[in-house]
Amino acid sequence: MTRERLTLYDTTLRDGQQSQGVDFSVDDKIRIAEGLDALGIDYVEGGWPGANPTDSAFFTAAPKLRHATLTAFGMTKRSGRSASNDEVLAGVVNANTPAVCLVGKTHDFHVSTALGISLEENVDNIATSIRFLKAKGREALFDAEHFFDGYKANPAYALDCVRAALAAGARWAVLCDTNGGTLPAEVGRIVGEVIAAGIPGTKLGIHTHDDTGNAVANTLAAIDAGARQLQGTLNGLGERCGNANLVSLIPTLLLKEPYASRFDTGIRRDRLPGLARLSGMLDDILNRVPNRSAPYVGASAFTHKAGLHASAILKDPSTYEHIPPETVGNARVIPMSNQAGLSNLRDRLAKAGIEVEAGDPRLGEILAEVKAREDRGFAYDGAAASFELLARSILGRLPKFFEVERYRVTVERRPGAKGAMVTVSEAVVVARFGPERVMSVSESHDPVTQADQGPVNALSRALGKDLGPYQPYIADMKLVDFRVRITSGGTEAVTRVLIESADGRGRRWSTVGVSANIVDASFQALQDAVLWKLLSDGAPVLGEPTRSVTFLP
Amino acid sequence: MTRERLTLYDTTLRDGQQSQGVDFSVDDKIRIAEGLDALGIDYVEGGWPGANPTDSAFFTAAPKLRHATLTAFGMTKRSGRSASNDEVLAGVVNANTPAVCLVGKTHDFHVSTALGISLEENVDNIATSIRFLKAKGREALFDAEHFFDGYKANPAYALDCVRAALAAGARWAVLCDTNGGTLPAEVGRIVGEVIAAGIPGTKLGIHTHDDTGNAVANTLAAIDAGARQLQGTLNGLGERCGNANLVSLIPTLLLKEPYASRFDTGIRRDRLPGLARLSGMLDDILNRVPNRSAPYVGASAFTHKAGLHASAILKDPSTYEHIPPETVGNARVIPMSNQAGLSNLRDRLAKAGIEVEAGDPRLGEILAEVKAREDRGFAYDGAAASFELLARSILGRLPKFFEVERYRVTVERRPGAKGAMVTVSEAVVVARFGPERVMSVSESHDPVTQADQGPVNALSRALGKDLGPYQPYIADMKLVDFRVRITSGGTEAVTRVLIESADGRGRRWSTVGVSANIVDASFQALQDAVLWKLLSDGAPVLGEPTRSVTFLP
Repeated sequence: MTRERLTLYDTTLRDGQQSQGVDFSVDDKIRIAEGLDALGIDYVEGGWPGANPTDSAFFTAAPKLRHATLTAFGMTKRSGRSASNDEVLAGVVNANTPAVCLVGKTHDFHVSTALGISLEENVDNIATSIRFLKAKGREALFDAEHFFDGYKANPAYALDCVRAALAAGARWAVLCDTNGGTLPAEVGRIVGEVIAAGIPGTKLGIHTHDDTGNAVANTLAAIDAGARQLQGTLNGLGERCGNANLVSLIPTLLLKEPYASRFDTGIRRDRLPGLARLSGMLDDILNRVPNRSAPYVGASAFTHKAGLHASAILKDPSTYEHIPPETVGNARVIPMSNQAGLSNLRDRLAKAGIEVEAGDPRLGEILAEVKAREDRGFAYDGAAASFELLARSILGRLPKFFEVERYRVTVERRPGAKGAMVTVSEAVVVARFGPERVMSVSESHDPVTQADQGPVNALSRALGKDLGPYQPYIADMKLVDFRVRITSGGTEAVTRVLIESADGRGRRWSTVGVSANIVDASFQALQDAVLWKLLSDGAPVLGEPTRSVTFLP
Repeated sequence: MTRERLTLYDTTLRDGQQSQGVDFSVDDKIRIAEGLDALGIDYVEGGWPGANPTDSAFFTAAPKLRHATLTAFGMTKRSGRSASNDEVLAGVVNANTPAVCLVGKTHDFHVSTALGISLEENVDNIATSIRFLKAKGREALFDAEHFFDGYKANPAYALDCVRAALAAGARWAVLCDTNGGTLPAEVGRIVGEVIAAGIPGTKLGIHTHDDTGNAVANTLAAIDAGARQLQGTLNGLGERCGNANLVSLIPTLLLKEPYASRFDTGIRRDRLPGLARLSGMLDDILNRVPNRSAPYVGASAFTHKAGLHASAILKDPSTYEHIPPETVGNARVIPMSNQAGLSNLRDRLAKAGIEVEAGDPRLGEILAEVKAREDRGFAYDGAAASFELLARSILGRLPKFFEVERYRVTVERRPGAKGAMVTVSEAVVVARFGPERVMSVSESHDPVTQADQGPVNALSRALGKDLGPYQPYIADMKLVDFRVRITSGGTEAVTRVLIESADGRGRRWSTVGVSANIVDASFQALQDAVLWKLLSDGAPVLGEPTRSVTFLP
């Protein structure tokens, strides 16, 4: 069976850059373009040369792409001048890309209101601009702005604009739902009517926005109706609510019917596991917290919190997973939570290397303790290391490595030597290791800037500075994330602190602490982090295994 | 023209609670249920009584709802026991809600794999359980788990299960895309076939998940095909990638065709502006950063960053807005740099009683300072009092009431008199009031339990204990909310503290502080809170108005 070609066009670097708070550097743009190219995207729209200094600089430094066609974006020429005298068009052509996409109006209301020219003049501007690109030897694409609203208001005129662009030599006319208000059924109907009016689907693209939460579905509706090019962005970046999210669309097109059997895209199926990494790279560049619930690639996308789901997953993952998570570079997570049952508890413990026989009454004890603590504000979903320590202590398998006798932390803000206010945080920790007693003191400071980072950093440094005989085991440990929530612990507000730690072997682990006092809560989480590290690295035990959870208040 | 009734069913408190990291308290659940009821949602599913202590406690303390039917969730009885001897079913019935929704299997594979019983036995369990609810006088609903996957594998069996539930007296059979992998066209086709098989659409609901980014579109496809009840959650919370987002669906159903003319929901159109607030309340409860790009209610949903868009918007907002933002309680945002940004600012200042002439260059200075601070991690959207103080200081209209010379806060954890560990937080604040210098010290403790509440509470008490001549002005002030976020300040992670204060006159105001040090950030916000109170109550000024912002580091 011959498959049809479905062409993918990425506009992360142009429409994605129009997201509030997004300002890519030239280097960012190069990294993203190379990532899209490696994935197998057909077109990479790099920006609008001439519209701002970054976009111009990007095209000057444009990366060599192996598969993708680098595309510059601009708009059709203005009235009252020739194409060769339009400096906006000149800026776009001077970027020297193999392809150029020009946006033009197709909604009669916009031609009159925003441009203030006649309908005929606008059609002529479209045709002239596309012919100009072709004469310069470029592949030309036409973004039909406000096409769906325009078609509803004046279908003949909207079609005239599209026909003019194609007749002038445009490879694609892309139907844009610029305001994002069109719903999937209507997108499907209108694309079908355009094709019925004689414009071939192999010349039609679709560009949607997520203003009703339907950008992905609108794209699929247009493909179902016959369009053969689709535009979108990584992670759904874009003006207002964003564009169609390619990270959601690509796995659907490659893995799900009718698309998987019917279409070829430029993306090989064995490249799909790289999608999660590409999505994460964009979050990294933007310094954004990744969306846990993102389809396919989110950290929660294959997390089974409901107890019934978790127990069925153990029998057969397909019971509650629509695709195997590894297909898209993701992984299954069975969290510990108050909705989980005994069935996944044993499995979870086994993964942490703790074997417990089925029917052991201490399994019930562990669950009861987890529930009681979650009622007090603890959350073990995101704190697997603390969960493991809690389970071990109930099972009598937690060695008593050390005991913190007391600690004190001080934050002082006062005028410094040069008159400006300075803040100094200092912590003292006193710990016992069997017979040995160690007193450790540390100030807080950032390793690079030397700036004060507050009481938790000071405590972390004091705890990590001299851990007596265990010092070699924690030397490569660092605190990589610190999150604080005010939550309800029974009847009172308490502070929950989640800490993520990492070590030189690349491991990451998460711990939790809860108290009305934020410093106390942080210290609990820090202490758990150290205990987990000692345990995992097989540090020698100086005391007896403990049955009670003495390290938590 | 008679409109059809479309019934809305919210499962934020049940399926929404299955989101990773979501753990509602009983109070949270009550607030959310009341908010949904006020909006006009028809059913509020409160949780699974008996499954965990919080859900059981919620139903015991269940709020009185005016419009919505409070619904308990559970599962059909197990095999080998009668409905009246099934303790899971008993737990659900004992919650004493007017309606009960039971989930049951409809996919033959799951009946064999997960339950390990015969197909007939499962149908009998469904019918018996629904009859049991009806005999107890409850309205019964049936969640047909894995209906779409089940229908594709064995349509006759999936239909048998749904028919059994309805024949036993269920008011609704809800078709669930439990694994979230079904695409809109298929959902529409299958719902159409179910109705063609003789099951009326007025008995059918739809429950979708967002695993392919199509939960909203799948819901619309089911309605298009004839289903007349839809389930979803606020902000799209829910297992894995979440459920259909009611905050996206509701405006579409009320404002867009064909839905607006065809259907009545329980939600009056004049309640729609409350939707953004309800969505924000949930983020507040979860201490989550609101999704800026959320359809309809996101902060960016009507933000026009592209230059061409912004200039057209000034001519006619409908050029780049699919609905007027105020319809859904949102607002248009034009980036700060241009003329529209400046006129917004004047409006905002005037509302705070600060008149500034149009064209005053200090307006631009304020905008620039706000932007610079937001780049460092400040957020003035939720801290109107701090914004007002910042603007006043730039305008030279901020009196210098007092100056904090230094402060120190200590947290100590050590063995107490009775051997158990105790924590003590103590703060010292030294402030100047013109010639007068006051030194104030306080421990932290909860007014009721006397328990230590940490360094910020100690600082707040020390600052509020003796403010010299201003003491009478702050005597009725209290800290009512305290939120902490780790955010990005330029290249480094910083801590942002938002504090809400209240006074005896019932006023509430919010202030913000940002620092790498959480105590510093808290102190900034506390100090702003006190300054705003002095300013608003017309406290006498001891010093000169200040032009520089000395009170912030």
